[in-house]
Parts: sequence; structure tokens; C-alpha cells
Amino acid sequence: MTVNYNQEVSSVNSFTFVKLLMTWRGSIWKSVRWELTMWILAFAVVQCFYRYLMTENQQRFFEYAAIHLNVRLVHIPLTFMLGFFVTIVVDRWRSVFTNIGFIENVALSVGTLVAGTDHAAKVLRRTIIRYLVLSQVLVLRDISMRVRRRFPSMESLVTEGFLYRDELEKMYKCETMYNKYWLPTHWANQLVHKAMFETKNVDSVQSMNSVLMNIKDFRQSMEMLTKYDWVPIPIAYPQVVFLAVRVYFIICLISRQYLLSAPPTEAQSIVPIMTILQFVFFVGWMKVAEALLNPLGEDDDDFECNWLIDRNMSTGIEIVDTCHDSCPPLKLEEPDD
Amino acid sequence: MTVNYNQEVSSVNSFTFVKLLMTWRGSIWKSVRWELTMWILAFAVVQCFYRYLMTENQQRFFEYAAIHLNVRLVHIPLTFMLGFFVTIVVDRWRSVFTNIGFIENVALSVGTLVAGTDHAAKVLRRTIIRYLVLSQVLVLRDISMRVRRRFPSMESLVTEGFLYRDELEKMYKCETMYNKYWLPTHWANQLVHKAMFETKNVDSVQSMNSVLMNIKDFRQSMEMLTKYDWVPIPIAYPQVVFLAVRVYFIICLISRQYLLSAPPTEAQSIVPIMTILQFVFFVGWMKVAEALLNPLGEDDDDFECNWLIDRNMSTGIEIVDTCHDSCPPLKLEEPDD
Amino acid sequence: MTVNYNQEVSSVNSFTFVKLLMTWRGSIWKSVRWELTMWILAFAVVQCFYRYLMTENQQRFFEYAAIHLNVRLVHIPLTFMLGFFVTIVVDRWRSVFTNIGFIENVALSVGTLVAGTDHAAKVLRRTIIRYLVLSQVLVLRDISMRVRRRFPSMESLVTEGFLYRDELEKMYKCETMYNKYWLPTHWANQLVHKAMFETKNVDSVQSMNSVLMNIKDFRQSMEMLTKYDWVPIPIAYPQVVFLAVRVYFIICLISRQYLLSAPPTEAQSIVPIMTILQFVFFVGWMKVAEALLNPLGEDDDDFECNWLIDRNMSTGIEIVDTCHDSCPPLKLEEPDD
Amino acid sequence: MTVNYNQEVSSVNSFTFVKLLMTWRGSIWKSVRWELTMWILAFAVVQCFYRYLMTENQQRFFEYAAIHLNVRLVHIPLTFMLGFFVTIVVDRWRSVFTNIGFIENVALSVGTLVAGTDHAAKVLRRTIIRYLVLSQVLVLRDISMRVRRRFPSMESLVTEGFLYRDELEKMYKCETMYNKYWLPTHWANQLVHKAMFETKNVDSVQSMNSVLMNIKDFRQSMEMLTKYDWVPIPIAYPQVVFLAVRVYFIICLISRQYLLSAPPTEAQSIVPIMTILQFVFFVGWMKVAEALLNPLGEDDDDFECNWLIDRNMSTGIEIVDTCHDSCPPLKLEEPDD
Amino acid sequence: MTVNYNQEVSSVNSFTFVKLLMTWRGSIWKSVRWELTMWILAFAVVQCFYRYLMTENQQRFFEYAAIHLNVRLVHIPLTFMLGFFVTIVVDRWRSVFTNIGFIENVALSVGTLVAGTDHAAKVLRRTIIRYLVLSQVLVLRDISMRVRRRFPSMESLVTEGFLYRDELEKMYKCETMYNKYWLPTHWANQLVHKAMFETKNVDSVQSMNSVLMNIKDFRQSMEMLTKYDWVPIPIAYPQVVFLAVRVYFIICLISRQYLLSAPPTEAQSIVPIMTILQFVFFVGWMKVAEALLNPLGEDDDDFECNWLIDRNMSTGIEIVDTCHDSCPPLKLEEPDD
Repeated sequence: MTVNYNQEVSSVNSFTFVKLLMTWRGSIWKSVRWELTMWILAFAVVQCFYRYLMTENQQRFFEYAAIHLNVRLVHIPLTFMLGFFVTIVVDRWRSVFTNIGFIENVALSVGTLVAGTDHAAKVLRRTIIRYLVLSQVLVLRDISMRVRRRFPSMESLVTEGFLYRDELEKMYKCETMYNKYWLPTHWANQLVHKAMFETKNVDSVQSMNSVLMNIKDFRQSMEMLTKYDWVPIPIAYPQVVFLAVRVYFIICLISRQYLLSAPPTEAQSIVPIMTILQFVFFVGWMKVAEALLNPLGEDDDDFECNWLIDRNMSTGIEIVDTCHDSCPPLKLEEPDD
Repeated sequence: MTVNYNQEVSSVNSFTFVKLLMTWRGSIWKSVRWELTMWILAFAVVQCFYRYLMTENQQRFFEYAAIHLNVRLVHIPLTFMLGFFVTIVVDRWRSVFTNIGFIENVALSVGTLVAGTDHAAKVLRRTIIRYLVLSQVLVLRDISMRVRRRFPSMESLVTEGFLYRDELEKMYKCETMYNKYWLPTHWANQLVHKAMFETKNVDSVQSMNSVLMNIKDFRQSMEMLTKYDWVPIPIAYPQVVFLAVRVYFIICLISRQYLLSAPPTEAQSIVPIMTILQFVFFVGWMKVAEALLNPLGEDDDDFECNWLIDRNMSTGIEIVDTCHDSCPPLKLEEPDD
Repeated sequence: MTVNYNQEVSSVNSFTFVKLLMTWRGSIWKSVRWELTMWILAFAVVQCFYRYLMTENQQRFFEYAAIHLNVRLVHIPLTFMLGFFVTIVVDRWRSVFTNIGFIENVALSVGTLVAGTDHAAKVLRRTIIRYLVLSQVLVLRDISMRVRRRFPSMESLVTEGFLYRDELEKMYKCETMYNKYWLPTHWANQLVHKAMFETKNVDSVQSMNSVLMNIKDFRQSMEMLTKYDWVPIPIAYPQVVFLAVRVYFIICLISRQYLLSAPPTEAQSIVPIMTILQFVFFVGWMKVAEALLNPLGEDDDDFECNWLIDRNMSTGIEIVDTCHDSCPPLKLEEPDD
Repeated sequence: MTVNYNQEVSSVNSFTFVKLLMTWRGSIWKSVRWELTMWILAFAVVQCFYRYLMTENQQRFFEYAAIHLNVRLVHIPLTFMLGFFVTIVVDRWRSVFTNIGFIENVALSVGTLVAGTDHAAKVLRRTIIRYLVLSQVLVLRDISMRVRRRFPSMESLVTEGFLYRDELEKMYKCETMYNKYWLPTHWANQLVHKAMFETKNVDSVQSMNSVLMNIKDFRQSMEMLTKYDWVPIPIAYPQVVFLAVRVYFIICLISRQYLLSAPPTEAQSIVPIMTILQFVFFVGWMKVAEALLNPLGEDDDDFECNWLIDRNMSTGIEIVDTCHDSCPPLKLEEPDD
Repeated sequence: MTVNYNQEVSSVNSFTFVKLLMTWRGSIWKSVRWELTMWILAFAVVQCFYRYLMTENQQRFFEYAAIHLNVRLVHIPLTFMLGFFVTIVVDRWRSVFTNIGFIENVALSVGTLVAGTDHAAKVLRRTIIRYLVLSQVLVLRDISMRVRRRFPSMESLVTEGFLYRDELEKMYKCETMYNKYWLPTHWANQLVHKAMFETKNVDSVQSMNSVLMNIKDFRQSMEMLTKYDWVPIPIAYPQVVFLAVRVYFIICLISRQYLLSAPPTEAQSIVPIMTILQFVFFVGWMKVAEALLNPLGEDDDDFECNWLIDRNMSTGIEIVDTCHDSCPPLKLEEPDD
């Protein structure tokens, strides 16, 4: 489930921030807790080692190294790498999310233009919707681990009622080494075509083409998803950014130690409070990028594909069947306004 | 109400800025006043504590800590976090705002293509508009707190005249665990379909499909709003940015104190004027991001959803009913310019 | 009038820059001249005050303050605030400018699909164009001060020939507390509808829907303009940026004074040449943002709305009337190239 | 001609870079050579002046000035001005380039939907294409200097065969103080309309509207070009950026001189190697912006408008005439794969 | 083949990063290995030269030079050049990738609207698909080296079955000095037109225009590819960025040597660990830009054009022929839900 906090920020005041900050799911706290704990432990270990186990000569060498590294930490352009990278990742994430297909458009089109109140017409409309959601399930199975776990095999689609056994056999018969996401869409198209020329449920070729266009738009948004899955951001880019952040803080384990030889004007703190803050901000920022890199993954903030499938199936069926005939009569006799 | 200042900046001159600066509603002054006051108070308290209540040893320790923290403040990359974050938030805000649905397009289409000057035709057109605005109200109720307060229950929709009682019952009858934003749109579609094939108010299937397409576009802009509400910017991102700003200025409470031991070349000011300016600029910048994060919220600068609903209802009814038949006659006898 | 310099930069060479630099209208020179003059005067006044009117003790205090402020000037993140802000403003400006409606699309559509060479047909087409330009004038009157000054009242629209008196009365009759931009568009739609079903000037419902779609596109671009006018960039953002720039240079009045106590290795200049350059660049950059903030305002670089209205009216009438029948005969007998 | 180097970068390896670097046309070398030469000469002149012509006192003053300026060079935010500006210019450049109109879409539409294999039909289709390319020439003449030089007068359009004499007279007859780019498009529309209702070359109003829509799209892309020409990036923005770069390096002529009084730990170089590198990178970066500012200009990297015109004319004629009837027969008897 | 790592980042945890980091194909490691090795060797050679082969005087001069260069390295604005450049390159790369044409849309349209189950109808549909994929092959041959190698000559298209010999001759007959990518599209259009008016496989002109529009969309995405190939990012931009990175690290060969005369507080390291890290991050970042500059090239991360062609051909044929008639019967008798 994505983490929704819109109500909490509906108005800016000083409490907005506190409420926002105390959210746990999907939060910066949740994402940095392990790495921060490990880093602090490592820092303490290095500190003990340096203070109690080293000879004086070793200590002096350690101090030289710490100063040397600390001065050169600026060579790692963490801020800008993260800033530019996150911007790109957020752009991509937004494209994915505007291409998450909702069924309403096509269902409303089918519900209006594929007319008929008899049983056959209802089954026809239901089947079109079912095929469209099915094509979405096929796509999402190959993209989202959560959907894959829910539908581990094609058989499970039959069990869950997205597919009848004879349809599954038809699918198997259609042999291709490439994906078959298009097959249910093709069936839906054929049904619309038949509704026009055989059962006359569609009133005209114009209306038929309207329905087909809506089906095409639905399919196309799923094609975009497969494209985004097929071509991720080139791997070297996240590698270089994520590596830079980690290496930076590994070097900090040495370079940010408080040195015994430091002048007394430096507070002799043993808790590197500022480095811990820096860790939280940079690693937290990086975690945003990591979470958004695969928007259909399994993070707290990723899209809820299984919810989407159920919702599309249910809403689609409501529109074309259950509530199809629910239009209230016009109030001719009531006063205007 | 959004704060409009376009007339004030219609020309660039030295007064533009003064006028712009003295605006209160939605301004930086209004948004930072409390936090700035609290920060200054806290700063004064820390100062008194440091100057009058500490022993000399404690003062020396405090001074060490202040220097230590001040030097390391650069580790918090405030500027870039805010810059990149605000850019992303502004992009999102603009998308929301271009998807705020205005009724004109679809109303003009209904007004032109659903013909007829008799009472039944008028009621038909009015009802279509009413259903479309109703679907907008349903969406906005779930997104905007202001609209929710205006329409706390479905009953209130009946009271305000957006819905008749029998229509409300139809809505209740349509059972689904997901939202029903689409139901009024579905009804509007059905009315257009009937206007074509039963009452013959629509001249052709082409015109019917034009109207349906315009209805679809209107609905789709609201679907985008629900998507933006469903999937906010991942919570960790605002958390990390807003936290960084706050932590920065909390540390400043100590690190920017003027030290008794400072060399006399440093002006012995007790008012941290530069830090206050920095506070205004950074917190002001951050407040922009906070205000835009939820564009349909309750800040001075957020969209006026209730105004929009009334406007859409009123304008829509004008177009399809009150002013529907107002087209002036052609001036055949007048000279051509 | 926007300032056009494209011909001057058609090729990159060393003179390009000089030509570009010496442009006056809309230039950086014109926009910074007053503020720069005032700043230099203020700087000179402060300098005299510091050098000749202060006691030695006051001078020492002034010097402490100057050093103190100068060191802390880096706390104001001018560069990035401006960079990010200008990017956002330019994006918005470009959206406005691609939504400035040109009449050609819709006029060519009307000219082709609303056929007939008799007087009535010509008047019909002229009237459609007039209504569309009228709707544009209504929108621009509320957005652009220049257009407002040209058309201070609805009466002036009659005087200038955009509206007949009886049409104005029809407009008054249509009572609404919201804007009526849509009314002329509604009339144009009605005329197209009548041309189809009454006078048979339009050949088919397909062609009628094509024309209506083009009218819709024209209206929609104006709707975008009203949206951009309705929802400006939240006021706190320009406030924080413009304030930061001004405060920065006000502080410079003190902090950049050349101190009498400065070591002799610092050139004892009394003209702060580098600060003046900095002023030109930063304030010039800021002026770009100020000028673009309201693209339909009255700066040298803003869109010429009055020119646009005249142009649209004239071109529209040419297309549908004056040059309507000018298509040359096919050259059947001439050799094919 | 744009400079194409795609084949050279088809794979990343260490030689890619060398090949890329040694390109001359449109390269950084070509664009900075003159200014770099002049800068180096000026630097040498200043150096000689400082070392051999100044008295010791003057030298000391020069040194003070040099140090003073060098320290304050950071006040000119070159990097970010260039970075943000180039991003905006590149965005605009890309918009222009996606609106460069290729004729294929509309030619294929005309070739398919305006049927007929007799001479009259061929002339009809050829004329439509000629009018469309003509309208493109009219637009480009006013935007691109190269096209203007090729077609200095309307007469030259007749000579080159884009226009017949009687058509030119028709154009002259259509009097307007605004541009007439739309006139040939209008003629093309009229021809399509006649092909439908007079010569029956178009099969139906649907097909006619398809062709008209494609013509509209072609015209609209040219309208975008005229808009981009009409409203360039506000002049103050390039002024402030280009000025900043120049002023920066003019100051460097003094501030980067190696001072006789410098401590011996500074290498006594007389060639300012790092400043030259800086010059190459910053001025090269700026040249990118200068070249892209007017994408239809005369730089090595600008669009080849004359080539485009010839290409569109030739390809258009091929599609609707020469190769119009070239569709090979179906292979009914051949085995399916 | 693009390198897919989406499954690996489906959830953010501490192992995500390790898995991501250890990928080899397309990774930062693979792209920097040679240059890093060479740089380290060069660094070692310079070091030996400086330490063992120079006289003391030469050493002192070397040290002066090293300090001089090191201090001035900040003049090369590496971070921002790379940041802004990579953002632009990524934007362009994404545009290319959303214009990679998938055949499904047009194939589903042909499969639905070009009806008929006899042999002739099947051959007709297969031929349309073949022509469309052929036009894609023609475009990609001129853009992608990989596709060019697979189809070195037009003859090879015949051998691979994309073209029959008589069709090739038709192509040769169509003489033009410009590309002929449009010819197969033209043929496909003609076939659709004939299917409508000769063989009556298409039911109506509306459906015909739907199919033609889908063909147009497919062709247009390929036109965009040719445009991106025709107009790359102006060569001076990658030159200046890539040169800056190389020059920076060449200077580092001298400036980052550890000097014998350095004070003992600097650790006397002979391995420049921080510079190596900097090298990895900056060159790795640059390699991202180099790889994305030509998205259809031959890097690990470039689009797999040959795979795309095979996939489109196979899927297209499946849709319109093999699985064309596979729509399962409606389940009228089965219980709803």
C-alpha cells in the first residue's frame, strides 16, 4: 500500500510537520534504521580500536589517515549526484504511475455503447471487461513480484476466475516465444466487432470504433509499463550514485573519529552527532531514490498492483453489469432549480 | 482562495517588489511568523542560560560545542535538498492544477449537440450537467477537507440539490467496496445514449460520440486527481527535507550564539541578524514546498474547490439552459465592415 | 512588443555577442539601471558616513559589523534560489505562450467546411470568427492590463466593432456571477449547428464535428490562460526569492565597504567594482524572473495581446471572407515538372 | 548541415572519445578558437605591460588589484548561470526541432485517400503537396536567413517552381498587413474539399476530414515555429549569462597574472594553463547555448531548412505521383512463411 | 540487450545494494575498468619519475607545479557540467525509447477491422504487417549499427523474408535521392484502401480511417527516431563535458602526487585512494552519459533493435494470422461471477 499523508498536510502549520515526521510506514526512519544502527556500531568499534588497542605510533598514523581522508571527502560530489539522480528517478516514477491503467474509461465506454439488457448482452460486456483486466494481470505478473506471487502459474488465473479453462487452452495453443499480453485484448476487440456485426449490440461503426479506441488506450498504458520494465535506467547510474553514498560513509568511519591529538578547542565528543545527522539525511535521500527505482516493487511506497487488479475487476463488472441499468428517470415535473 | 498578484507584477519596476512584498495572505511572512518567533525566543533562552547561569567551565564546554557544530553545519546540504525538492513539488502541483476540471468544454458540447428547446430537452441537458458536477463533488469530497466539511454526508448532497433522493437510493443500491465516482458519469452517458436513440435530441452517432468523448475527458481529469491523491510523493522525501531544515536551525540555536571568548574583531552582537535572515529564506522556501505538497488542502494558496463546484454548476446550467437559446440573429443586411 | 533578436544570433561569432549586448529594449541594462544607480548612491553615502562622520570608536564598530556580515553573506543561497526559481518561471511562461491562441486553425476549418459563396454564407463565417475573437478579447481583458485599457468597458467592444449592440444586450441578459467567456463560443457553436441543419452550408455531421472540435481547441487554449491567471505561482515563492536578492545587496552596502583598517595588500579601492558586477548579474537574473512572472503584463518582453487580437480578427476575416474563394485553378495542361 | 556523430558513439570505449574530440565542424575547437586566441594575446600584452613597463609602485598597485579581483571572482556565479540557462535553451531547441515539419504524414494521407489514377487526379495531388511545401517555405523564409537568401523575393518562388505566376498574383491580391502563411494551406484545403464534392476523388466525408486533419497538423507544426520565432527567450536572460562569462574572463586578464611578489611555493609559470582550460570549458559551454539559441540560424549545428524544403518537395511528389501506384500484388499462391 | 535489474530492486533493503553492485554487464565496473587501470599505471609512472629520476631542483619545480595545479582544479566545474548534461541526455534517451515502435497497436487494429477468414484475407493482413515491420527495418538499418550488420544490403532483406524480389524491384524503381522509409507504409495504406473498396474486407470508411490512423502512429514514432538520429545533441556539448572530465584527471596525475616536502601531518600514502574513488564516481557518471548519448548503439544498455524487429514480425503475424480466429465462445450458460 502506498502511504497516504495528504490529509495530514492539508494545511501548513507547525503541527503538520510533527504529524508527518511521526509516520512510520514508508518513512525515512524505517528505511535508515538498520544501516544507521550498523554504521554507529562500526563507528564505535573503530573508536575503541583506535583509542585502546593501538600503540602510540599506530595512533599517530591513524590520525594522519583520518585528517587526510577528511580533507578529501569533498571530492565525492554526493549532494549533486543525489539531487540530479533523484530528479530523474522521480520523473520516471511519475510516468509509470500515470500509466497505471484504471478500467473506468473503457468500462464506461463499453457500458454505454455496447447496449442490450438481455443476459447475452450482459455476459458479452462482462467478458470484455474480464479480458481487459486479464491482459493487465498478465502484464503485471511479469513486472511486479507481488502479483507474481499471487498468480504463480497460469492455472492460478483459472482458479481466481480471471480465465476459463477453455480460454487457457486457447492461450496455450497460440505459440510464440514472445509475450502474449495482447491476446485477451485481441479477444475483447473481436467481441466488440461481433457485437457490431452479429448480435447488433453496438449501434454503429462509429460507436464500435470509439469502444475499440478506448480499449487501445487501456492496452497502450500497459504497453508503456512493459517498456519501462524492459528498459530501466541504465544500471551504471544507480550503481555510481548508491556506491558513492556508501563509500562516503565508510570513509567517515575513520575520518570523522575525534582525534586524541586534536586541539582542546574542539569539543572532545565521542558521539559524532553531526555525522549521524548527515547519515540520516543523505541515506534517507538515497532511500527515496532506491524506493522509486522500481515503482511496482514491494516497498511500502510502491503501487498496490493486486489492489488495482481487484478494484478494476470489481468496478468494471459494476459498470457494465450490476449497476448498468441504474440510470434514474428524468425529473420532468419537478421545478427547475 | 488562491492569492492572485498578477496585476501587481504586470510590469517590472521598483515598486512591483514592494507591493508584492507587502501582501499578507499566503505570504512568506504569514507562514514563517510563528516558527520565527519561537526560534528567536529559544535563541534568547539559550543565550541567557549560557551567559548568566553557566559556570565558567560549563561556558567553555558550551563554546567548544558551538564551534564544533558550527563548522560542521555545512554537512547538511540544505540548499540543494530544498531546490531539487521544490522543483519536483512544483511540477506535481502544476499537474494537479491543469487537471482541475472546468465544465465549459463538456457543457458547450452538450449545449450544442443535444438539441431541443422543449422542457424535456432542457431537463435532460440540466441533468447531464448536474451528474457531471456531482461526480466532481464525489471526487473532491475524498480529496479536499474543505469540500468534505461542506458535504459531510451523502445526505448533504441531497440538501444542496446536487442529488435527488431517488438518485441517492440508486447510489446506495450499487454496492461496491471501491469508490463510486464513476456512477454519475455512467448515468450521464446513459442519458446521452437515450437522447440519441429514444428522444432523438442528438442528431447522429457522430455527435453522440463527440459528447461522450467530452464527458470522458472531464471524467479523466478527475481520475488524475484521484491518482495524485492515491499516490503522493513518497513520504520519506518530504520527511528528509523538512527534517533537515528543522534540525539545521535547532543546531543553530547553539552554534550561532556569540561566544564570550570570541576575539574582539567579531562584533559582539547579541541579535543573530544573519541567522534570522537565513531562517526567513530557508523556512520560507520550505513553506512553499509544504503548501504545494497538498494543492487541494486548506492553505491560502490552495485551489478553491468549493468555489469551483459552485462555478461549474452555475456555468454549466447557464450554458445548457438559461442562455442556451441566446444566439443573436445574423446581420445579413448590415454592411461588411 | 516582445523583443526579437533571432536574426542577430543566427550565427555564432564574436560580434553576435556585441550586437546582442547593445540591445536596449527589454535588456538587462534597462531593467537594472534604476536599482543599480540607487544602490551605488547608497553605497557612496554609507562610505562618506563611515569615513568622514564617524568617530574612531564608531568606525571600529562599523568595521566589526562589516566583517561580521561579509563572512555570513554565504548563508543567503542566492544562486540556487534564483536558478531553481527561474527554471520554474520559464517553464510556466512557455506554457502560457504555447496557449496563446492563433485563429488560423479554426478559421481554416470554418473556411473549408462551412461552404457557400453567397452573402449569407459569408456573413455566417464572418460572424463565427468574430465571436471567437470576441471570446478571446473577453478573456484577455481580465488578464492583460493593456487589453483592459483598450477595452475599458463592454461598450468599447461595440465601438471597436467586436460586438453589435443587440449582442451586447443578449450578453447582459445572461446573468451569472461567474465569467461569461464561454458565451460567444456558445453562439459560434450554435451557428455551426444551424449551418448544418438549417442552411445546409455544412456538408455532413462529420464536418460539423470537425469544426466544433477546432472551436473547442481554440477555447481550451484560452481556458488554460485563465487557469494560469487564476492560479499563479504561490506568492511566497517569488517573495522569498526577490527578498533574498534585495536583502543580500542591502547588507552589501555595509559589508563590502573598504575598511580603513584593512591590511595594505588589499587594494584601497573606493569603487566596489566586483560588487557592482555581482549586482548587475544577480539583479539582472532576478529581473528575468520578474518579467516572466506575468507573461501577459506590460514589460518589454511580454506578449502583445492587442496586436494578437487585431491580427486574429484580420486574418480570420481574410480566411473566411476576403480570400475565401481565391483557390487558383489546377494546371492540368502544364507539363509535370 | 547538422553535425552527425551518432555512429562514432554507437559504443562506449576509449576511442569513442578521441574520435568525438577530433571532429572539427560544429566542435568546441572551432567555436572557441578566435576568442581563445584573442584572450591569450591580451593576457600576454597585460603581462608584458605589468612586467616590463610598470614602475615598481605601479606593479605593487597592480598586484593589489589582481589579488583583490581574484578573491572576489567567486561572486560571479558562472557555473550555475550557465547550467540553468543551457538547460532552458536545450529544452526550447528540442521543441523547435520536434516541430520541424516532415511531409510524409500528410503526403501518405493524400496519396491514400485522394484516389484516382488519371492525369487530373495526379495533378490534384501534386498541387496539394506543392501548396503545403510552399506554405512551409513562406514560414521558413521569415525565420531562417539561409532560406531567405535562397528565396530573396516572392518572384524567386516562381522561378524555383514552387508557385505559378497566376498563383503569385492571387497571393498579391489577398491584402493583409499580417503574414499570409495560411493562404497555400487554405488552397490545399479547398482542393481537398473540391476533390470530395466535385471530382469525387475522395471516397467519403470521413476520409476528407482525415486528410484535412493531417493538413492541419502539418500547418500547426509550422505555426509553432513562427511562435518560437515571435517570442524568443527574453533578451535579458542571454545578455546576463553571456555578459557574465565575458566579464569573468576579462577580469581574469588581470587577476590571473602571476605576480612577481608571489611566494616561491607558487610555480612561476608565465602560461596560465588552468585559466586557459577554464576558458575552453566555460566559453565552450556558453557557445553551446549561443548556437542553440537560434536553432534555425546559420551555425554548423543548426537545422538545414533548405535541405528540408527540397526533401519535402521531392518526397511528397514521389508519394502522391511517381511511386503512387507502385503497390506490389499480393502473393496469394506463395506458401505462408 | 538492455540490462534488467528491476527484480533485484523490487524492495529496498541492505542486500538490494549489494546485488545491484555486483552486476557486471552494463555496470560502472565494466565501463571504467580500462580507463581506471590506465590512469593508475600513469599515476605510478609519474610517481616513480618524480621520486627516483628527478634531481632535487626538478623535484622542487614539480612540487610547485603540483600545488599550483591542485589549488586551481576547482576552476573546472566538473560536477555541474556532468549533472546538467546527464539530465539532458537522459531526457533525450527517454524520448527515443518511448518512440521505439511496438507493433501491437496497429496489428490489433488490422486484426479486428480488416475482417475475413479466407486465405486471401489472411495474406492481406500478413502483408500489411510485413510492410510495416519492413519500414521499421529500413529506418533502423540507417540508425543502428547492429541492424545494419544484420541487413548489410537490401538483398539481405529478401533473404530474411522481409521483402519479395518483385517488391525489391519496385523499390529500386522508385528513384529518389532521399530515404524511402515511407514506401512500405504507402503500400500498407494502399492495401487497406483496396481492402475497403475492392475486396470489402473492411466494413466501413470509419474503420478504414481507424486502421490508417494506427498505421500513421506507427510510422510517426519511426519518424521521430530518424529525427533524433538526424539532429543529435550539438557536438560541442558532449565534447566540452567529456573533455573536462579527462583533462581533470590528467591534471590529477601531477597535482595529486604525494609530495616529499609535505608536512608529516599528511599521511605519506603512495596510493591516492581518494582520487581513485573520485575517478570511479566521475568517470562512471560520465560513462552513463556516453552510453545514453546514442541509445540505439552497441553498448550493453542500448535498445535491442534486432530483437525488436523479430518480436514485431512474430507478434504481428500471430495477431493477424495464427491466433486471429482464437476468440473463445461466450459462456452464456455459466453462472455469473
